[in-house]
Amino acid sequence: MTVSISNDKATPAAPTTGRLRPLGLREITLKPGFWQQRQDTNRNASLAHIEHWLEKTGWLGNFDAAAEGRLPGARRGREFSDTETYKLLEAMAWEYGRTGDPALDERYRAIVRRVAAAQEPDGYLNTNFGRPGQAPRYSDLEWGHEIYSYGHLIQAGVARARATGPDELFQVAVRAADHVCEVFGPDGIASVCGHAEIEPALVELYRVTGERRYLEQARLFVERRGNQVLADIEFGRSYFQDDMPTRQAEVLRGHAVRATYLAAGTVDVAVETGDAGLLDAVTRQWRNAVARRTYLTGGMGSRHQDEAFGDDYVLPPDRAYSETCAAIGSVMLSWRLLLAHGDAEYADLIERTLFNVIATSPADDGRAFFYTNTLHQRTPGTEPAPDVLVPRAASSLRAPWFAVSCCPTNLARTYASLAAYLATVDDDGLQIHQYAAATIRTGRFGCEIDTSYPHEGRITVRITESPDTPWTLSLRVPHWATGATLDGRPVEPGWAHLNRRFSPGDVVVLELPMQPRITAPDPRIDAIRGCVAVERGPIVLCAESVDLPPGVDLNALRVLPHAEERDGAVVVTGLTVQPPPHGWPYGIAPEPITGTVDVPLRPYHRWARRGPSTMRVWLPLADGRTNQQ
Amino acid sequence: MTVSISNDKATPAAPTTGRLRPLGLREITLKPGFWQQRQDTNRNASLAHIEHWLEKTGWLGNFDAAAEGRLPGARRGREFSDTETYKLLEAMAWEYGRTGDPALDERYRAIVRRVAAAQEPDGYLNTNFGRPGQAPRYSDLEWGHEIYSYGHLIQAGVARARATGPDELFQVAVRAADHVCEVFGPDGIASVCGHAEIEPALVELYRVTGERRYLEQARLFVERRGNQVLADIEFGRSYFQDDMPTRQAEVLRGHAVRATYLAAGTVDVAVETGDAGLLDAVTRQWRNAVARRTYLTGGMGSRHQDEAFGDDYVLPPDRAYSETCAAIGSVMLSWRLLLAHGDAEYADLIERTLFNVIATSPADDGRAFFYTNTLHQRTPGTEPAPDVLVPRAASSLRAPWFAVSCCPTNLARTYASLAAYLATVDDDGLQIHQYAAATIRTGRFGCEIDTSYPHEGRITVRITESPDTPWTLSLRVPHWATGATLDGRPVEPGWAHLNRRFSPGDVVVLELPMQPRITAPDPRIDAIRGCVAVERGPIVLCAESVDLPPGVDLNALRVLPHAEERDGAVVVTGLTVQPPPHGWPYGIAPEPITGTVDVPLRPYHRWARRGPSTMRVWLPLADGRTNQQ
Repeated sequence: MTVSISNDKATPAAPTTGRLRPLGLREITLKPGFWQQRQDTNRNASLAHIEHWLEKTGWLGNFDAAAEGRLPGARRGREFSDTETYKLLEAMAWEYGRTGDPALDERYRAIVRRVAAAQEPDGYLNTNFGRPGQAPRYSDLEWGHEIYSYGHLIQAGVARARATGPDELFQVAVRAADHVCEVFGPDGIASVCGHAEIEPALVELYRVTGERRYLEQARLFVERRGNQVLADIEFGRSYFQDDMPTRQAEVLRGHAVRATYLAAGTVDVAVETGDAGLLDAVTRQWRNAVARRTYLTGGMGSRHQDEAFGDDYVLPPDRAYSETCAAIGSVMLSWRLLLAHGDAEYADLIERTLFNVIATSPADDGRAFFYTNTLHQRTPGTEPAPDVLVPRAASSLRAPWFAVSCCPTNLARTYASLAAYLATVDDDGLQIHQYAAATIRTGRFGCEIDTSYPHEGRITVRITESPDTPWTLSLRVPHWATGATLDGRPVEPGWAHLNRRFSPGDVVVLELPMQPRITAPDPRIDAIRGCVAVERGPIVLCAESVDLPPGVDLNALRVLPHAEERDGAVVVTGLTVQPPPHGWPYGIAPEPITGTVDVPLRPYHRWARRGPSTMRVWLPLADGRTNQQ
Repeated sequence: MTVSISNDKATPAAPTTGRLRPLGLREITLKPGFWQQRQDTNRNASLAHIEHWLEKTGWLGNFDAAAEGRLPGARRGREFSDTETYKLLEAMAWEYGRTGDPALDERYRAIVRRVAAAQEPDGYLNTNFGRPGQAPRYSDLEWGHEIYSYGHLIQAGVARARATGPDELFQVAVRAADHVCEVFGPDGIASVCGHAEIEPALVELYRVTGERRYLEQARLFVERRGNQVLADIEFGRSYFQDDMPTRQAEVLRGHAVRATYLAAGTVDVAVETGDAGLLDAVTRQWRNAVARRTYLTGGMGSRHQDEAFGDDYVLPPDRAYSETCAAIGSVMLSWRLLLAHGDAEYADLIERTLFNVIATSPADDGRAFFYTNTLHQRTPGTEPAPDVLVPRAASSLRAPWFAVSCCPTNLARTYASLAAYLATVDDDGLQIHQYAAATIRTGRFGCEIDTSYPHEGRITVRITESPDTPWTLSLRVPHWATGATLDGRPVEPGWAHLNRRFSPGDVVVLELPMQPRITAPDPRIDAIRGCVAVERGPIVLCAESVDLPPGVDLNALRVLPHAEERDGAVVVTGLTVQPPPHGWPYGIAPEPITGTVDVPLRPYHRWARRGPSTMRVWLPLADGRTNQQ
C-alpha cells in the first residue's frame, strides 16, 4: 500500500471536512509556561517511568513471550495490558515527531520490534487470546478488549505515520486493521467490542490512507452497537452503550471512558460519511451530559462500581470517580465536535477539563498519577510506596502504577500531542481556542502568543506572518469571562473576531477577568446543596487541610459567600462550628459558631502535592442552621 | 453425641451468660398486627416463592447433582448458592417449631434429604468445590464462601434442634462443624473465610451441644482475622475485615454484611469466653458505626462498588446501598449487644431497622424484594418481570429473585423468628424491647400486649401471670419519644421500670408521642445538607411522586420545616421552584418560587408499592437560595 502522509496533519484527529481544520504538531509549538512545563515532564520523566513499569510488570514482556511461544504460562497483567504499550508508543511517536530526539527514537524502535514479533501471520495481535490454553480469539467480546486493543495499536501507528512517516509499527497496525475488517466486516462476526476505541482509530487510519474500507468498518461498528449484540451483564448493557442505538440516545451513559471514546468515533464516522443525523445525536448527548452529568472540574463519571455516568444530577463530590481517562475521552469528543461545528462551548469544556482534571492527575515529577479525581477528600490518604502497584480506584494520593493502569499512558499520549488542541484554521483565518504561550506558523498565518495564563488573564498575540488580504483572527472568550476586553473594548463570551488586514508586528491583547468567582450549583445536584465553589479564571479552587491553622477541621467549616485576592492568594472567610455531640447523627440542633478563620484556596490541580491532606472543592455556606450569634 | 435441647431457648441466639436472657419462640407469640401480618405473608407466600426459585434456578438441584455425580457440569448459580437452601431450611424450622404444620414439615424434610445426600463421608459439603473439574476444596478462601456456607447450614440445624429437636439436618450440620474444626483447627489451615458467618453459627452450636471445641474454633477464627491471613484484593482487605485485628478496630468497616456478621459472632465469642476487652471492642465499633455510618432508616453500607460501609458521614441518600442483609446483620449484632449489656439504645436501633429496612424490602404479597434500599429515587424504575432473575443491585422496584439472592432467604429466616426480638427476662423481671401485639408466657411472667403501634402510640400491657413477690417490668422508651408517659406519668427515653408486686389483670399503659417530627441531619453528612426528614414514631416518612399533583416534580420541591397531621396523613408545605435553564449546571442564580403545594408523606416502608415512582426521604428546605417573593 502506498501511503501519502501530509506532515502538516501531524495531529491526533484530522477530519477531511468540517467547520475548522486542525494544525499539525510542527505548526504549533508550546513555549515556556503552564503546559510546556507539563509536556516536558511527560517527555523527560513519565515516558521512562512508564517503560520501567511495563518491563517490571511483564506487560511488555508478554509480547516477547508470545513471539517465543511461552504463552499462556508467562502472561502477566489484565486482558487489556497490551494497550499500555501501544499508548506509550503513541506518546513516543508524537514526542519524536516534535523533538527528533534519536535516543527516544531508538527506544521506540526497540519496543516496536518486540510488538511486531508477536503479530501472527493473519494480522491477529493479542497476547491474551487464541493460543492453546488461552480462550479462543473473540470468544469474549464483552470483556476481552481484543478489538479495543487494535484501536490503540492503530492510533499509535497513525501517530507515527503522521509525525514521522509510515514505519514498522504502522505496517503492523495496517495488518491488524485489515484483519479486523476481514473478521468483523459485513460478512463477518456481526458484533462489536465491549470497549469502544476501534471506531476513532479506524477513521483516522482511513484519513491517513484514504482506504475507505476502514471508514466503512468503523461505521459498521457504530451502527451495530446498541442493538444488544453483546451479552447482558450485571451493570446492564448501557455499560458498553449496547442498550440502544446511538442515534436514539439522549445523553452519554454507562462506562464513561467507553461512552466518550464511542462518541468521539461516532463524530468521526458522521463527519466522514456526511451523516448529519448521527452528528446531531452525539451533539445532543454531549449537551445533555454537560448540563446534567459533568463535574465542575469537567470530570465525567460519578460511580465507582462501574466507572460510569450516574443518573442526571447525581454528582457527589466525595468519592467522585471522574476518571482521568474519561477526561481524556471527553477532550477527544469535544475536540471533534469543535472541529465539526466551530462553537466555542466545546473549547470551553476542553479548557476546564485540561486545567482541572488532566493537570491534576500527574505528580510534579511525572512519576505518579491519580486514576480517579475526587472533589472532596474527607480523610487524609496514605502515600503509596513508590514501587508498589495499587488497585485502580485508590486515589487518595497519586500512585506510580495501577493494576489497571490505563491513565498514565493515556496522559502520556495526551501531553505529547497537547499543542494540537490550541488552535485551528479555516478559510477565513485562525482560531485560538486555548491560551498558552506558543508559536504558531502555518505558512499562511503566524503569531507569537505570550501569556502567563492561567496565572494572569492577559494574552498577547503578535502577528508574525499574514497574507496581504484581510482575514479573521478569532479568539475564544471563555463562558465565565464576563468583562473581558479585546484591545480595550468589551467582548462577550463566545468568539471575539477581528477581521482586518494584519501585518507582521501587529499586536492584539485579550484581557480575561481573573477575579475569583463564587459559583453556586444547580439545585438539582443534591449532593452539593448549600455549598459554593470558588473559581478563578479557568481554574477551580479548593481548600486543603494543610493550609488551615492547626486544630481547624476542614469538615467543620462553613464559609461566607465572598472571596477576595490577598497577597496573591484567594481567601474566603470561614466560620468554625462546634460539631454536634457524638451519637445518633439525626435530629441535630443548629451548630454554634466558635470562631472565624481565613481559608486560603488553591488550584484544585495543585492538591495533594504536600503530603496527605483533606480537601474540598464545594464549601458549605453558613446558613439558617448555623447559629450566628 | 447426646444433645440436650431446652425448648424455651428456641431462639436464634441463646447466650449462656449476659445481662438479659432471650425468650423462646413458644414463650412469646405475635398477635394480629403490623408484624404478624408480615410473618404470615412470609410463611404463606415467601417460603413457597423461595422454594420455587431454588428449584427453577437449579440451586437446589445442585445438591442432587452432587449426590448423583453430575457435577461440575450440572452446577448452577454463584459459589454461595447452597446457602439460600440453608436459610430457607432455617426459616422452615422456626415456622414449623411455632406452627407444627405437618405439610411444612414434609417440605422441610424433603429438602433436608437432598442436602444430606450431598454430604461427603468426611463431613465436607459444598456443591461448588472439590470434585474433578472443580477448584480444590479451600483453594479460594477469599471468594469461595465454603466456610460461610457451613455457617448457614449450622444455623439451620441449630434452629431445627431448638425449635423441634435434633434431626437429620442437625446431624449434617454437626458433621460439617466437626469437619471445619478438623481442617481449620489449631493444627489446621491457619486462615478464615472471606465472608464471616461461621463464627456466630459455631458459638450457637456450642450453646446447643455444650461442645467447647465449637466455641474454641469460633474464637480461633475471630482471632485470626485481621492479621492479613487472606490475600489482598482490589477493595482492600478491609472488605473482609482482614485489615486489622477486631480488637483494634474503631468502627465497622468493609462489606457491611460481612462486618455485621463478624461483629455478631465476635460478641458471641466474647460473651462465652468472658473476654471483656473483645466485647468492648465490638461495642465501640457499633457505637461509632451508629454515630457516623448509619442511615436514618437504620440501613448500613453506602457503597455499591463493594457493598461496603463508606467513610464516616458518607451517607448519600441516592444510590444508598443499605442492603437488606446488612440490616439483618445489624439486628443480629444489636440483639447480641442488647443481651450482653441491657442498654435500650441497642433496641432503639433494632426498632428503627425493623420498621424502616426489614419492613421495606418485601412486597406486600411476599414474592418480590428490595436488595438495596435507597433513600432517594430520582427516576421511576421499571417493574421487573415476575419470572426474571435480575442482578443484585437493581432495586428501583422490588424483584422476585436476584442472581445473588441472599436477601429473600435472609428475610424469611428473620420474619420466621421475629418474635424472639420483642422481649427478654432477667432475674428481676421482664423487659419489653419492641412494641407489637403479642402474648408472653414464660412460666414465671406473663402478659398480653395490645397495641396498634406504630399506627398509634398507646401500648397496653395486661399482666396474666406473675410471681407473688415484687418484680420489675421494664418498658423501653424510644430515644425519640420525648413526652412519653407511663400510666400517665412522664417517663424519659431509655428504660421505664415498674418495680412492684403485680397481679394478673393489672394493666400498664405506655403512651408514646406520635406527632410528626422534623429531623435535621448532622452537618457532617454532606450529602443531605440543607434537607430535613420527617419521622412519626419509629417510622421514617418519605414523599413519593405518585402522591403529588400532576406536573409537580419531586426533585423541584423545597419544603418548609413544619409537618402536621391532617386527616390521618402527615403533610408538609412544599414550594415548587423554577429549575434553572438547561446548560452548564454551575454558576446558578437563586431559584424563583412558582407556587405552593401540600406534600403528603407516607411511611418509607410503603414506598414503591403503587407502581414506578420517584421518592425522597430527605426533603430540601427552602433556604437563602430560594427566591421567596
